[in-house]
Amino acid sequence: MVQNASRVEASGSAAEERRRDILVAASRLFRAHGLHAVGMREIAGELGMTAGSLYYYFADKQALLAYCQESTLDALLARGRAIAIAAEPPQMRLRRLVVAHAVTLNEAQPGSLAHLEIEALDPSRRAPLLAKRKRYERLIRQLIQEGVAEGSLAVDDAGLATLSLLGALNWSVKWFRASGPLSASEVGERFADLFLKGLEARRAN
Amino acid sequence: MVQNASRVEASGSAAEERRRDILVAASRLFRAHGLHAVGMREIAGELGMTAGSLYYYFADKQALLAYCQESTLDALLARGRAIAIAAEPPQMRLRRLVVAHAVTLNEAQPGSLAHLEIEALDPSRRAPLLAKRKRYERLIRQLIQEGVAEGSLAVDDAGLATLSLLGALNWSVKWFRASGPLSASEVGERFADLFLKGLEARRAN
Repeated sequence: MVQNASRVEASGSAAEERRRDILVAASRLFRAHGLHAVGMREIAGELGMTAGSLYYYFADKQALLAYCQESTLDALLARGRAIAIAAEPPQMRLRRLVVAHAVTLNEAQPGSLAHLEIEALDPSRRAPLLAKRKRYERLIRQLIQEGVAEGSLAVDDAGLATLSLLGALNWSVKWFRASGPLSASEVGERFADLFLKGLEARRAN
Repeated sequence: MVQNASRVEASGSAAEERRRDILVAASRLFRAHGLHAVGMREIAGELGMTAGSLYYYFADKQALLAYCQESTLDALLARGRAIAIAAEPPQMRLRRLVVAHAVTLNEAQPGSLAHLEIEALDPSRRAPLLAKRKRYERLIRQLIQEGVAEGSLAVDDAGLATLSLLGALNWSVKWFRASGPLSASEVGERFADLFLKGLEARRAN
């Protein structure tokens, strides 16, 4: 759930649903033309809305971008937390988390291209998002550390391994195409193969 | 060397040197405030130049961004090519390339934050940059494939492994800080450890 105490736009579940429609349309335009070439007017046009009604849902483009990022992070965190507490070995949970991240960014979550562009936001909007990013990063790092503690993984620097994994996953938004040879979940599976092999404890030989 | 036949701005080596100074200043501002919050006026101000003299070197911000990206890609390609033809095992060359990439983006090359933002450019400016990106991607993929051919690496999908590696490296621009605990070259070494282990052929056991 995206919440923002200072928001004065429309509220309620119908408005929330409309915001999701707006996100889908905005995301389509962002992927085609870039985040910065697309204005509120183009987004309204894509939806057959007037610019005035769009402003009823988002006070400005900054509000829309912040909402894109927050809803992506909320989705990543919700799935990540559910996976992190599952009764499975850490390697298996890490694999599921990698796949869920690839799918969330590239299929499930509209507007996730904006997820990459925290610099596009005013500094005042960045702090709560950065806090959520840190929480998600910590969740992955702790999963890696659990694997190290139980002996299945061997990693010198779990923090850097986390950043490397997040980089590979987040970057997929730049090149993934739904029309390409692999589904988002297949991309996630292959990334998981590569990273889990890179992180696993070696057998003595 | 950055070349662009359609460029009508100042030419010659003194102008080229001045462009590098402008890149350093622009890069500092981009990292602090984001690519899109910074205009030509702020960049000129940072250098103590008038906006008019800045336009003598770059016709507009698009020209400056394209130059940032082209000079970063040229540096990556130049180093990558030199490493790719060295008389060393593919794994060793891959390690050196990973370290060179981390250092180029985070220490050696001003303006490399812009490297991530090809969508910020007009479509007409993107094509030559995309061609260079493809060339660099191919260079890495071929190194991985060489390792597979000689038996030291075992990778199902060298293309996806390349994208994963590039994602991890490119994303470092978002979080790397010169004041942080690791140098850019140490970050590169640790990424190389992780990826090379993920890519290496397993011994039978």
